[in-house]
Order: sequence, then structure tokens, then C-alpha cells
Amino acid sequence: MTDLSARILSGDPRAIARLITLVENESADAIPTMKHIYAHTGRAHVIGVTGVMGSGKSSLIYELAVVYRAEGKKVGIIAIDPTSPFSGGALLGDRIRMMELSTDSGVFIRSMGTRGMMGGLTGALYDAVDILDAAGMDIILIETVGVGQDEVDIVKIADTTLVVLVPGLGDSVQTIKAGLMEIADIFVVNKADTPGVEQTVAELEAMLDLATAQTRAIPIVATSAKQRQGISLLKQRITEHSEFLKQSKQFETRRRQRYEAELVEIIKKRLLAFIFDEATLRDTVDRCITQISNKQLDPYSAADEILGRILK
Amino acid sequence: MTDLSARILSGDPRAIARLITLVENESADAIPTMKHIYAHTGRAHVIGVTGVMGSGKSSLIYELAVVYRAEGKKVGIIAIDPTSPFSGGALLGDRIRMMELSTDSGVFIRSMGTRGMMGGLTGALYDAVDILDAAGMDIILIETVGVGQDEVDIVKIADTTLVVLVPGLGDSVQTIKAGLMEIADIFVVNKADTPGVEQTVAELEAMLDLATAQTRAIPIVATSAKQRQGISLLKQRITEHSEFLKQSKQFETRRRQRYEAELVEIIKKRLLAFIFDEATLRDTVDRCITQISNKQLDPYSAADEILGRILK
Repeated sequence: MTDLSARILSGDPRAIARLITLVENESADAIPTMKHIYAHTGRAHVIGVTGVMGSGKSSLIYELAVVYRAEGKKVGIIAIDPTSPFSGGALLGDRIRMMELSTDSGVFIRSMGTRGMMGGLTGALYDAVDILDAAGMDIILIETVGVGQDEVDIVKIADTTLVVLVPGLGDSVQTIKAGLMEIADIFVVNKADTPGVEQTVAELEAMLDLATAQTRAIPIVATSAKQRQGISLLKQRITEHSEFLKQSKQFETRRRQRYEAELVEIIKKRLLAFIFDEATLRDTVDRCITQISNKQLDPYSAADEILGRILK
Repeated sequence: MTDLSARILSGDPRAIARLITLVENESADAIPTMKHIYAHTGRAHVIGVTGVMGSGKSSLIYELAVVYRAEGKKVGIIAIDPTSPFSGGALLGDRIRMMELSTDSGVFIRSMGTRGMMGGLTGALYDAVDILDAAGMDIILIETVGVGQDEVDIVKIADTTLVVLVPGLGDSVQTIKAGLMEIADIFVVNKADTPGVEQTVAELEAMLDLATAQTRAIPIVATSAKQRQGISLLKQRITEHSEFLKQSKQFETRRRQRYEAELVEIIKKRLLAFIFDEATLRDTVDRCITQISNKQLDPYSAADEILGRILK
């Protein structure tokens, strides 16, 4: 047991922050501690919150954190969106509100950026979730932007994925069609105090009616983070989804998918570190890149050669 | 030489589309052709266009394509943003305009989504760029959304990266600070026909004045894709950047970085396919995941075991 492990397991926020920084930097120093704390993971309910910019994801997370705290639950928040107020982006007023939350010792907030070539953000995100989990967080909320590669990864990590929309945003249903549809466990129509909320809900309902192969009805919750409306109902729907997962055995399936994806990330990172850090291999790699530059070699044949050197 | 290779090299759009689909699906059938055509790559100038949603990236790409076509250059367009009109997203009017471009035989347009667990989108994007390059495209324009992991990848692929902003979008400078700053070779302030353009340009200039460690002044170009203003100037700045890269030897450095990143993607994809497709290894992986689920094993130790099985 490393000293850092003991501090993580006791929930020490400075130890948590330090270990997340180590995994973000892909430092080998993190590995013994990650191995030690792992047996203490698996308890937290991981909630992914995704949606386009301006949909009020951060405010929603803030309000959810407040209601979970009122129940005495410990809450971890990870913001991947660099424009999130949790990351220091967006409007000053929001940012101050989010920072107030961080003075609560039952809340840990972390912003994560894209780092490194080897594992990228995804590997570090898995590690960060495990760290917060081992540190005793009951609820882990992950905020991501809703377009691009990120929301595809979130669904592998989260037990429950919220897709946040807002009324009147013309792109909403378009965006959903472009890939968010499949990943939503719960739809949230936020900013329900603005006009057009009924229409957005109706459009969503119509879309969900058309969708086939559903094992459960996907709930739609209208919320106003600003006016603190619908937050308790949303929390209830999240709890119901968690119960549904456990009763339908989907919980185990999802968790296995998460562990497999996590294992893939670690293997990727290790293999690439092995290939690019070993001095003898590094020479081969550099010579291959020179030949690729000169078009004397193609990258697929170069990969064959390098893999031939390292694989049994 | 495969039949598909010959058709790619002759610029056959159906062959191009087919081979990109194969690489998107991570099909092994693509590899012989990818190897064959590789010697014919490296000529195209690759331009990454990134910026927040609503900044008019697609319209800008459309207008750039038009001016390059007027010079007789062949143009490839790859849209990664699922809400791009090139991908069938956004407003119908825009979409029709973009589709008109696709009837020009000197233009190839492709939308790419996030696929597969192994290589993800990035590997397929490198391949798609190589395919369009080998097929004789002089200019390859890649459209990505400006927040998240994507824009970090684009800078490894593109020779020239355009960061597109719009006046009055409060988040603009915020977004730049959150990571887009370092990747811009040229800043574009689009929608220059709307109020606030001078202020946005001034803010950018102030920010660039503060930035240290610049090897060249980063130009700011005000454009209005809608009114077709500033497009020729933008094209000129792109050409100047291309010349700067070649004169300063940075071209070779950037291309080496691209080839290394491309090689990494291929090695990753191959190794993971090897680990997860080999029946004997698959059993080990499944057993590891079960043990991870039961918290009898941590994923780092599981990775050690699996790598011990396959590495020399």
C-alpha cells in the first residue's frame, strides 16, 4: 500500500488531485497506486452529461450536485468541455457559482483536458473515475460536449447518460439524429422556462415513438436549472434507471463493456510507450518515418515491420 | 497493383468512396490497396478548418473550394462534424448549395463519422487523406468542430490549420484560450458583415501580441462567406503559409509528425485487433474482464498479463 493509496482511500482531496494529475501526464508513478486502489472501486454511480454548448449542462450538474449533497451523498464532477464554467470557461457569474460548490468538502471538481499522444484523454478519464470512486464518491458526474468523438466515449464510461437539449435550438433534433439518439438513457430538455419547450418535448416523443429495439421507454425530463425546476424529478429518473440496469442484468453488461474499454486504453498506452520509448525500437521507428517521408515505404508495411520486431 | 488501386490513382470517385468506406469499417481488404497507392501521396496541401458551431465553417469551405476550382485545382472535402451541411446536417438551403458542389467532377466530398472501437475516427481520417491525395486532389479541406479532442488531431494531419471565429460570439476568445490558440496558422473572422467584427479582430490582435515563442506573425483574415468577401485574401494567406513552411523547413517537420501519428494509429489498430481477435488471447481477455468485474484483478495488472503473453 503506497502512502498515496491510503490518502486516496480516505478521500483526501489533495491526494485525489495529485493522482489525477499523474494519470493525465501518463506518469508511470501512478500505476502502483492505481493497482492498489482498484479493489475499492465499482461503488459509484457514474452519470455522463452531454449536450451542445449553451444547453446549460454545467448549471444542471451544479443543481444535481446540490440535491445529491442534500442527501449526504459525496459527489465528484469531471468537466471535459474546456468552455465549461467548471473548467474556468464561460461566464464569470456561473464560474463563481461552480467554485462555491468546490468549498464543500463532500464535492470534488476536476477539469480535464486533452493530453499526450499515447493514451489521449480517454485513458486518463477512466483512471479519474476509478480514483473518485475509490475515494468514496457516491455519484460521479462527467460533463462533455455533445458533438465529436467525446460523447461516444462517455457512453462506455457512464452507467447513465443524460442528453441535454434546449427548446428552440434548431439543431437539436438534427444533432440527436447524428448519433446522440442511441446513447441517451434519459433526455433532459433544459431551459424549460423559455418558449418552445412543449414543441421540443413533442418532437422528442415523436422521434422516440419511431425508434425500434428499445428495451425500455426513454424518459424525457423538462428542467430549468436556473429556476431549480425538475431537478428532483431528474434525480428520481436517474435512480430509476440505475434500478432498471440492476434488475435487467444490463448493469453487469455495461460494466463489462466499461472494463473492456478501460483495458483497451491501458494496453494501447503501454504498447505505444514500449514501441516509442525503447531506444532500439525508436531507431527503427525513426528510420521508418524517414522512409515514409520519402515514399520508399508505406505506413502499413512499416507497422508490419515494427510489430514483427515486438510480437511473439 | 489491385484493380481498386488503379481506379483510385485515376481519380475514380466511386473507387475513392469505396476505399474510404473500407478504411472506415477497418476492413483488412483496404490494406493491400493502401500499400499500393501510398507512393503516390504527399502532393496535396491539407487544410484543417476548425471552429465552433455556427461559425460558418462549411460556407467558408464551400467558397474556398470555388476559388480553388477556378484555378483548375482538384479539391477534396472531408467533413467530420455531423452537424455540417456536408454531412447532411444544418439548414436545407446550405445543404443544397454544398450538394451542387458535388456535381463538379473536380470536387470530392465525404462525410466521416466516428466508427469502431479499435482505431476510432483518427486512423480512418489519415487513410482518407492519403486516398484523396493519391487520387490527385491538389487541396484537401477537413472540417472539424472546434471543441473536444478533434481539433487536437487535426493539427497533426493538416499542413495549414484555420481557426474560424465570428464577431459577437462571447465565447470566442475564451474558446481560443482553451486550446485553439496554439493550433492556428491563420485566424479567420467570418461573418465580417455582422457588427462587432473590428472588436473581434482587435481582441485577437491583442491576444497574439501577448503570445510569445512565435516563429511567424499569425495572420487574421476577415471574411464573409455569405457575401464572398475576403476569400481570395484567405487563399493568398494559405499559399503564403505553405511557402513559409517550405522555406523554414517546418514543412518536413510537420509532415514527419503526421507520418508518426499515422503510424501510431495503424500500430494501435493492428495490435488491438491482434489482442481481441485471436481466439486464445480472447479467452484470456474475457477471463481478465470477469476478474476485473469482481475486483479480483485491476486493469493495469491485467494489461501486464496480456502484454506478457504477446510481447517478445
